[in-house]
Amino acid sequence: MNQTNDAYPSRLKETDDHVEPFIRTDPVVHSGNKYRWHGPLDEVALSKYERDGFLWFKGFFNQERMAPFFEELREMAQDKEMLASDQVIQDPTTGDIRSVFAMHELSEHFSRLTRDPRILGMVQQLLGSEVYIHQSRINDKLGFEGNGFYWHSDFETWHSEDGMPRMRAVSASLMLTDNNEFNGPLMLIPGSHHYFIPCVGETPDLNWQQSLKSQRLGVPDRKALGIMANRGGIQAPKGPAGSLMLFESNTLHASNSNISPWPRANLFFVYNSVDNRLKEPYAANSARPEFLAARENTAPLTMHDDFPALA
Amino acid sequence: MNQTNDAYPSRLKETDDHVEPFIRTDPVVHSGNKYRWHGPLDEVALSKYERDGFLWFKGFFNQERMAPFFEELREMAQDKEMLASDQVIQDPTTGDIRSVFAMHELSEHFSRLTRDPRILGMVQQLLGSEVYIHQSRINDKLGFEGNGFYWHSDFETWHSEDGMPRMRAVSASLMLTDNNEFNGPLMLIPGSHHYFIPCVGETPDLNWQQSLKSQRLGVPDRKALGIMANRGGIQAPKGPAGSLMLFESNTLHASNSNISPWPRANLFFVYNSVDNRLKEPYAANSARPEFLAARENTAPLTMHDDFPALA
Repeated sequence: MNQTNDAYPSRLKETDDHVEPFIRTDPVVHSGNKYRWHGPLDEVALSKYERDGFLWFKGFFNQERMAPFFEELREMAQDKEMLASDQVIQDPTTGDIRSVFAMHELSEHFSRLTRDPRILGMVQQLLGSEVYIHQSRINDKLGFEGNGFYWHSDFETWHSEDGMPRMRAVSASLMLTDNNEFNGPLMLIPGSHHYFIPCVGETPDLNWQQSLKSQRLGVPDRKALGIMANRGGIQAPKGPAGSLMLFESNTLHASNSNISPWPRANLFFVYNSVDNRLKEPYAANSARPEFLAARENTAPLTMHDDFPALA
Repeated sequence: MNQTNDAYPSRLKETDDHVEPFIRTDPVVHSGNKYRWHGPLDEVALSKYERDGFLWFKGFFNQERMAPFFEELREMAQDKEMLASDQVIQDPTTGDIRSVFAMHELSEHFSRLTRDPRILGMVQQLLGSEVYIHQSRINDKLGFEGNGFYWHSDFETWHSEDGMPRMRAVSASLMLTDNNEFNGPLMLIPGSHHYFIPCVGETPDLNWQQSLKSQRLGVPDRKALGIMANRGGIQAPKGPAGSLMLFESNTLHASNSNISPWPRANLFFVYNSVDNRLKEPYAANSARPEFLAARENTAPLTMHDDFPALA
C-alpha cells in the first residue's frame, strides 16, 4: 500500500474518523493557459465539461460504424479459449458474453477506434498531455435482465485499487445500440466530480473478482449522494447508436437494470495521462490484473484515422 | 376452481398446449351508445383510453391535498397492532412501512378520495355501471433501495387468483410525491390491454404471501412482451405530486427499482364494476384475503365531494 501523503484517502476502517467529502485538488481541464484552446473543443464545451463532469455527443459516429463490433462479439462467443479467460465475463445462467476486457489489445478495430483523431484530440485537450488506455471493454446488457450498477466514482476505485495518483483520466463510452429511457442508460450526477467522497470499508484481497459482478465497496454513503443529487440533479443522456459520452474520472454515475426488451451494448475505454501512470494501490494490498489496469502497455497513443477523407 | 368456459385461461401447466396471446373479448370503454358521453371524459380522452389503455392527468389535484396521507402513514407507523397485521408490508431490514392494503377501510380520508366526483365520474363512465373498490393500498418506495416489479397484467392475477370474471375494472394511481425519470415511475406498454397473454405456471397455495414481495407467477413470456413493446413502445408518465393515472385492468405495466435519492409514494385503488363481482378463482385453489380482493364490502360507491365549492 501507498498511503503516505494520500490526497484522496478512501476504503476507511469503520473505526476511522469519519472523513467528510472535500473539494478535489486537481483541475478538471488540464490544458493550461493558451494550450486550453489547442484542440477540437471550444470554450463552451470546455466550460460545460468543467461544470458538469461530462460531455454527450448525440450521434457522434454514424450507426454503420458500430456494426463491426457486433461481429467481433459474435466471433468471440465462438472462441472457447477466450471464453475461459478471466477477462471475459459470462452470464452465470445463459453463458452469454456480458463483458470483454482489454478489448483494445484483442481487436485491431477497437484499438484504431481509441486512436481516432476525433476522440483522441478531445481527450488530449482535456488531459493536457499524451495519453494511454488504462482499461477498455465491450459491454452487452441484454433486455429483460441486464443488471444495473450502483452509484460510484471510477476514480475512487482506480486510486484505491490501482494506484492512479490524481484525477487526470477521461472515460469514453460509445453506444453500440440506441440508448433510451428504458434500457438502463448511464445516469450521471452533474457537478459531482468536484468532490471526493471517502468511502468506508477496507478492500479485501482479490476484491475485483467480486466487484466486477456488483460493486459493494467504494460506494458513497447515502447522505453524500443525496446532497450531490439534490444539488446537481441526475441526467441520463439518450441517443442513437454511435453516440459518445466523455466523462471525467470522478463523476458519480450509475445505471438501472434493463427490464425493457431492448438490449443495450456499448464500448468503454478509459484514457489516462502519461503523467498519471499507476503507482502502488493506495488502499489495497495488491494490484489488479493488467486487463483491468494497464501498467505495462502504457505507451502514448498515436492518432490513426480510418476515414481520412472525412478529416 | 372455476375453469368451465374460462374466457381467459392462464397459470397453465408446463405440459399444457402452449396458448398464444389472443385479442380480448371485452370492451375497453363499457358505456354503450349515447351513454358513452354521459360523463366527464370527452371523445378524445375516451379514444385515447381505448387505444392506449391508460390516461395520465398531470397535476390533477394540487399538492397540498396529498399532504394528509403522509400524516396517516406516520400515524400508522406508530400503531403496533396495525404493523403486525397481514395487510401491512414492512421492509424486512428497516421495518419501515412499504405498503398498507385496504386503506379505504382504514382511513375515512382515503375513502372519501375514492368517492371524489372528479375521479369516480370518469370511472363510472369508463366501466358503464356503478362501481366498488376491489383493492386499495398506499405505497412508499424509498430512495436508494425501493424494489421494482416486473411486467404483468393486473387482470391476469385478479382473474386467476381472485375470480374476477371479465376485464371491467380500472386502477387509479395518485402520486403523493413527484414522479420523475429516476425514482422508479410506473411504466406502461400502450395498447397491450387489447391482448390477453396466458401465463405458464400453476398457482401454489397461499401464493399471495410471496407475490406481494416479488411476482414470479402471472408473468408473460419474453416473446410476447417483446412483441407488445416493439408494437406499442413503453411510456413512463412524469409529473408532480397530485398527478393521477387511470389504467385499464389488463394494461401491461412494470417499474424499475429506485436508486435515486428521491422517494416515490402513491395511493392505489382499483374500481371494479358491480356487474363484475368476484366468483371462485379461475386458476387457484382458494380465494385471497378480503384486504386483497373484496368479496364482502362491494356496495356501490356514492359520490362525496370534499370541495363542493370547486365543483
